Amino acid sequence: MPELRRDPIVGRWVIIATERGKRPSDFKIDVPDTNPKNCPFCLGNERLTPPEILSYRETNTKPNTPGWWTRVVPNKFPALQIEGTLDRQAVGIYDKMHGLGAHEVIIDSPDHLKTPADLEDHYVEKIIWAYRDRIVDLKKDNHLKYILIFKNHGKVAGATISHPHSQLIATPIVPKRVKEELKGSLQYYRYKERCIFCDIIRQEIKTKERVIIESEYFLSFAPYASRFPFEVCIIPKKHRAEFALITPKEVEDLAKILKSTLAKIKKALSNPAYNYIIHNIPSTLRGDLEDYHWHMEIMPKLVNVAGFEWGSGFYINPTAPEVAAEYLRES
Amino acid sequence: MPELRRDPIVGRWVIIATERGKRPSDFKIDVPDTNPKNCPFCLGNERLTPPEILSYRETNTKPNTPGWWTRVVPNKFPALQIEGTLDRQAVGIYDKMHGLGAHEVIIDSPDHLKTPADLEDHYVEKIIWAYRDRIVDLKKDNHLKYILIFKNHGKVAGATISHPHSQLIATPIVPKRVKEELKGSLQYYRYKERCIFCDIIRQEIKTKERVIIESEYFLSFAPYASRFPFEVCIIPKKHRAEFALITPKEVEDLAKILKSTLAKIKKALSNPAYNYIIHNIPSTLRGDLEDYHWHMEIMPKLVNVAGFEWGSGFYINPTAPEVAAEYLRES
Repeated sequence: MPELRRDPIVGRWVIIATERGKRPSDFKIDVPDTNPKNCPFCLGNERLTPPEILSYRETNTKPNTPGWWTRVVPNKFPALQIEGTLDRQAVGIYDKMHGLGAHEVIIDSPDHLKTPADLEDHYVEKIIWAYRDRIVDLKKDNHLKYILIFKNHGKVAGATISHPHSQLIATPIVPKRVKEELKGSLQYYRYKERCIFCDIIRQEIKTKERVIIESEYFLSFAPYASRFPFEVCIIPKKHRAEFALITPKEVEDLAKILKSTLAKIKKALSNPAYNYIIHNIPSTLRGDLEDYHWHMEIMPKLVNVAGFEWGSGFYINPTAPEVAAEYLRES
Repeated sequence: MPELRRDPIVGRWVIIATERGKRPSDFKIDVPDTNPKNCPFCLGNERLTPPEILSYRETNTKPNTPGWWTRVVPNKFPALQIEGTLDRQAVGIYDKMHGLGAHEVIIDSPDHLKTPADLEDHYVEKIIWAYRDRIVDLKKDNHLKYILIFKNHGKVAGATISHPHSQLIATPIVPKRVKEELKGSLQYYRYKERCIFCDIIRQEIKTKERVIIESEYFLSFAPYASRFPFEVCIIPKKHRAEFALITPKEVEDLAKILKSTLAKIKKALSNPAYNYIIHNIPSTLRGDLEDYHWHMEIMPKLVNVAGFEWGSGFYINPTAPEVAAEYLRES
């Protein structure tokens, strides 16, 4: 079973995924592109994945057979596992616990090549519904404190299977980065009695220079303190703490703005590798929280993170977000 | 002038290095290996760098001419600049200040190919003396709150010039990651009245399973909650908060253990890209601080940091540090 270990100095948890156990020689082999013939995410190869957890499919088709549009399956090499107990314990000065959690794969569509930037709108909508439905389901498990949705596109961004897919990892503790956002936005709320994200949205819409797309319900913009060149944030314009409370109209609109933003990034930067993540409230907090606001962060992988960043937690970004937004608006 | 921008939610500062200003097309070109003929760090090409700040060289040779063993020069494209004022100000809801600081390059040796893993001991000692002497000098500038020494080895680790070199960035604020370490170790000290790093060293020497090399003054080991496969920490065995207080005997010993550790990593993992950093106390704190302990962190770049890590601040490490330490001990 994977093990969670706590850094005793900064309190950061690390997943030691022993089941993926790597020897030095394992790092020397480059991951080959999957061939659609034996791609576990392609239509007709459903037997190559563990049994599906969820799928949206044509009526009268059976689970784990063709006929699906979006399909959710457990990760075959999970970083965290759903069975067992946490069993937190000391190891001398250190702390560890069992790697309890969930690790799922959301197969975007049966198409081996089309990413959300290329798919028809209704496919992108189904991906978003899958995110929403899995969050609603996993929130029922009290052991899981946080559910993180993310996508790795391209090898440099960590994708090991080229067929476009998203992932979900549910963790038994609230991750550090989410805690930092919650802490910062709560401090602001206590001082101003306003949501900091709502204030950011108002300022961005007013100044316009960092806006990429504004739709009925969402804003796509380059954050003021972007860590990476061409980093983008997509956020609901009205206050919303809980992603899973998204309405059908908002799903339609989010699918359009996500697709357009990713298509602009693909065009402007020649299909770069990227990660995107959804930052939502922890499962233990109420959906109507006034001081947090869910959002997506899209991070193209154009520069290598180097020693300075690892050592400091500071980032050097060679492209001002105003410049990035202008390029993306015009792409 | 570069600009420092503060993320209003988590308080993270980002350097918008406008002088390095990148357009989308700049990201498409791969950095070519430097040819020793026009390598700015090679012997005889001293005119290709800004004038040297420090060099250790044969007697009777002039600055900026051959005859040097280790040479320190300003970075030609600095992320931060030494002249000017901070001029911190609001931009609506946001905060910015001028990118005041220092960015220097420590050219390890005149050899275009030899890294500290391959150089003779006395060269590695000179690199360490250069780190020490530059820290002592920059500490005199009250604007600079922190001095970070780091090395990027290999393209994936962010090196843009292949001739082995280290870098130094001095910042007008204490970086987030250092603050987190200071906070965690102070909390421990208040509770136990002992340095947490000293306790870690005692436990690691006792259990042995994560130790790679133990020398007279230093310990090289795989940290219990390693974020990355084959991550290594080198730390002075006796309590030392301030790196710059290192003694000549300790420099000799550090040169040997650093060289041996890097040689083991090079051998076991087929010369991987890596970053190393030195975590020292901020310039504003006293060198005899009882609750902090300087150390080096070596991070081989074997896996891609993906969406989960960026979104959570959690790390998935596929190699247990006990396994990594065993491989490195035997390499």
